[in-house]
Amino acid sequence: MTVRELAQSAKKASSKLAITSAKTRNDALLSMADALLAATPAILSANAADVQKAKERGVKTSYIDRLTLDHKRVEGMANGMKKVALLHDPIGKSDSVIVHPNGIRIEKRRVPLGVIGIIYEARPNVTADAIALCIKSGNACVLRGGSEALLSNSTITDVLNDAAVKNGIPDGAIQLLRDTDRATAAEMMKLNGLIDVLIPRGGAGLIQSVVQQATIPVIETGSGVCHVYIDETADLDMAADIIENAKCSRPSVCNAAETLLVHQSVAKDCLPQIAQRLTARGVELRCDARAKALMPGSIDATEEDWSTEYNDLILSVKVVDSFDEAITHIDTYGTHHSDAIVTRDINNAERFLNEVNSAAVYVNASTRFTDGEEFGFGAEIGISTQKIHARGPMGLDELTTVKYTIRGSGQIR
Amino acid sequence: MTVRELAQSAKKASSKLAITSAKTRNDALLSMADALLAATPAILSANAADVQKAKERGVKTSYIDRLTLDHKRVEGMANGMKKVALLHDPIGKSDSVIVHPNGIRIEKRRVPLGVIGIIYEARPNVTADAIALCIKSGNACVLRGGSEALLSNSTITDVLNDAAVKNGIPDGAIQLLRDTDRATAAEMMKLNGLIDVLIPRGGAGLIQSVVQQATIPVIETGSGVCHVYIDETADLDMAADIIENAKCSRPSVCNAAETLLVHQSVAKDCLPQIAQRLTARGVELRCDARAKALMPGSIDATEEDWSTEYNDLILSVKVVDSFDEAITHIDTYGTHHSDAIVTRDINNAERFLNEVNSAAVYVNASTRFTDGEEFGFGAEIGISTQKIHARGPMGLDELTTVKYTIRGSGQIR
Repeated sequence: MTVRELAQSAKKASSKLAITSAKTRNDALLSMADALLAATPAILSANAADVQKAKERGVKTSYIDRLTLDHKRVEGMANGMKKVALLHDPIGKSDSVIVHPNGIRIEKRRVPLGVIGIIYEARPNVTADAIALCIKSGNACVLRGGSEALLSNSTITDVLNDAAVKNGIPDGAIQLLRDTDRATAAEMMKLNGLIDVLIPRGGAGLIQSVVQQATIPVIETGSGVCHVYIDETADLDMAADIIENAKCSRPSVCNAAETLLVHQSVAKDCLPQIAQRLTARGVELRCDARAKALMPGSIDATEEDWSTEYNDLILSVKVVDSFDEAITHIDTYGTHHSDAIVTRDINNAERFLNEVNSAAVYVNASTRFTDGEEFGFGAEIGISTQKIHARGPMGLDELTTVKYTIRGSGQIR
Repeated sequence: MTVRELAQSAKKASSKLAITSAKTRNDALLSMADALLAATPAILSANAADVQKAKERGVKTSYIDRLTLDHKRVEGMANGMKKVALLHDPIGKSDSVIVHPNGIRIEKRRVPLGVIGIIYEARPNVTADAIALCIKSGNACVLRGGSEALLSNSTITDVLNDAAVKNGIPDGAIQLLRDTDRATAAEMMKLNGLIDVLIPRGGAGLIQSVVQQATIPVIETGSGVCHVYIDETADLDMAADIIENAKCSRPSVCNAAETLLVHQSVAKDCLPQIAQRLTARGVELRCDARAKALMPGSIDATEEDWSTEYNDLILSVKVVDSFDEAITHIDTYGTHHSDAIVTRDINNAERFLNEVNSAAVYVNASTRFTDGEEFGFGAEIGISTQKIHARGPMGLDELTTVKYTIRGSGQIR
């Protein structure tokens, strides 16, 4: 099938899927999880072939790590699907009912988006995760994973699709693009009328390529240049705890801090201690002149550092003259993902919450909480860094749209 | 200023505008409306020059109608702005507060989108309308109107901007692109990072051009191939009232009906009467063979008719064998804007509401109610026919996004 045919098939199935009951979708997900577990040998064997080919091509070790599955990871995928099955159903609930003076009742009802296109890179577990979230939310999906994971993704999709269809999910609702040519992906991004929204999941390069090429609406996810700002009145022990956590607890993720800003009046009281703690955790410090003088072992930051998402044990550090300079710095160099202030001053706390224009703004807590699970959504399809449709962590509700249903008795206008 | 400079200026102003109080924005809107009225002579004189030039270029009469302003239209624009000032403020309200087990409070708060780009055609009143809705919702705007209306749009923008700045709206928040070259519009559509969303307002050609060219997120509005389906059990008098209203009350708008579908079992009981009523209103009827035999004076419909938005006193009519055929027809040829069933059968009513996948689905009421005013929003920026961010009529809430504000006391993950 061509990519257009895949999408047409998904669209056709989506109308039927949209009117399945939550029970049908949940039961199917539980059976799909069992089928995945039962197919572990086939999945691991397909994955071993993918890994072998990738190694022959000499890709980076970190890439091989993301690509590689084992028993535990397959179990993790199955458990993830079961967990999604148990979440609250996002479909059918009513956002509001307006009664027009003429008596018609206008109800705003949550319905599936329709067909979701997901474009991702090496991790084969995204395949199971994306299928689970789409089926749960009544959406058909067209998946396009990285070419290196094709055998793994194909096996996972086949197993899940079989179990889905046997359990009442319309055939066609789960589609994987097996032609991983770039031209086919480009064609997929322009299937307006067949795919309702594209969600790219991966690095900045992938996401920008989708944003630039797609004519279908895109939800941009991911890139995070997050800041922690230590204000004049901060509890400096708390500040040290927060920056260590925000930088070191998982440096590869988008909600990790990349830049520390410190008010000049407390720099000498906290930067030496922070340098010691972070250096002990293996963090490289890239500093402006004033910070460098207070942080032993640090090196000079370049202009580029202030807008770099390291995704690594590297932190840029700058001493600012004022609260306002901190806000301006965040606005200028940040990606408006997650930014935190550590302060005891209520005015600065409120100003930070109001004036820093990021998806998540924190007072006295680590930026690492920007996450669907931590926000109580039970699942996460990604973290939107754009402003339309969804902003911040996206859960099941963000995979829905609305429809207005209007009940009358002959009203005309 | 280049379009990039205009957008940079808007973006800079948007941060300040986002934290103005509702009172500041509302008071400014009232003063802006007064300034508009006071500037009526200048606006009408600029408009007369635009109209003169357009006439010399020999554009269509309907186009001249849309372009032309008079005292009453300027008054209408001013009154529209005052009305917007009095609406409920969409900014700052809390959608939800989640308390994490560790005690951090995660609040989802409504904030402005930032900078909204609006691309439109001949109507100069869109200028005042768009500025009012953007300022009300705390958004800066970059407007790009049709070249034929440039003098009118420039005068209106200058008057409103002057009054806005004098009343506490940050300078730069209201921008009009005065270079109406196509290349400049194309550049505007790719200003990611400066303009947050584009809303095209106009005909299908304009909208598709924006969807195809833009790399900024777009909210697609407008095109409506709307259906009325007369079911087997319909009250046929009600059905005739509804189709007459849906077709004739304002044929140029997107929520007007373009196609009538009739169940075969009631076709002979209602189509002759409907033909008589519609013909008396000047409607041209384009029918399939069975409908044609029952509708005197009608002509043959072509395949193209079923997917045509006439925006005119023309209606396509088809007799269907079943409820299911009606749903399939709507799904195949419609634009999923607004569709209605006339029925006494509760099962078919519910099935229609559930299975017809349109922004607005009606039981026993005219499609003409799909409108921000009718839905109680108080204002309308357009009717979204896409699924992400907004679907159906968009009011002030649809000009906002969310931000998560998180208050902690040192929590780390």
